[in-house]
Amino acid sequence: MIEQTVHMGLLFDFYGQLLTEKQRLFFSLYHQDDLSLGEIAEQYGITRQAVYDIIQRSQKTLSNFEEKLGLIKRYIRQREQLEKVQGKLKELGDELARTGAAGPWQEQLAEVQELLAEIIEEF
Amino acid sequence: MIEQTVHMGLLFDFYGQLLTEKQRLFFSLYHQDDLSLGEIAEQYGITRQAVYDIIQRSQKTLSNFEEKLGLIKRYIRQREQLEKVQGKLKELGDELARTGAAGPWQEQLAEVQELLAEIIEEF
Repeated sequence: MIEQTVHMGLLFDFYGQLLTEKQRLFFSLYHQDDLSLGEIAEQYGITRQAVYDIIQRSQKTLSNFEEKLGLIKRYIRQREQLEKVQGKLKELGDELARTGAAGPWQEQLAEVQELLAEIIEEF
Repeated sequence: MIEQTVHMGLLFDFYGQLLTEKQRLFFSLYHQDDLSLGEIAEQYGITRQAVYDIIQRSQKTLSNFEEKLGLIKRYIRQREQLEKVQGKLKELGDELARTGAAGPWQEQLAEVQELLAEIIEEF
């Protein structure tokens, strides 16, 4: 179970481009910049209820896309698998270090680890 | 540049659930089961032109989603990166084998390679 804030962030990252400009703006002010409904309402000269409705509607739209496409579910599964690979590479490195054998493999292993870390970072 | 058939398959895999049932059916009969427009038309008792229009419309819808979300572009990039990791792990294995040192690392490396191969397979 991932945290609600993280989940909203993922929904926005994956499907945010399918919202209208206004939906995207309000969703992001509320969920990412942490403004309150009241603050957004004041800033844009509309009622708090109208802001609430727009954000609720956006969330529903994003959730519907995820329900149909499941790309976030897939993303989370793949990320976990890659982190498992990362853990196993670390174990492998520890084991090799224990053998005390130096050699070009040290640099090669470091390279693989770095590449994988980058992939996970940008995933 | 990926092949057109592969590209259509990816579009369908990623965004196919956003088509209507009929669009999905015709798109898949045409692009995946390789039926001709005429064959589909005959089978469903509509004109060849109507089939063509539905399939064209489906392709446009799928392409629009990719244009907005870019998830296939991202998928292809990630897959290439993972294959690069796979190649580097292979080099590492070759290097370690050259050292002639046997040990638990052999099994550990094989495990990492297997796990990564699975991830790429299901990616």
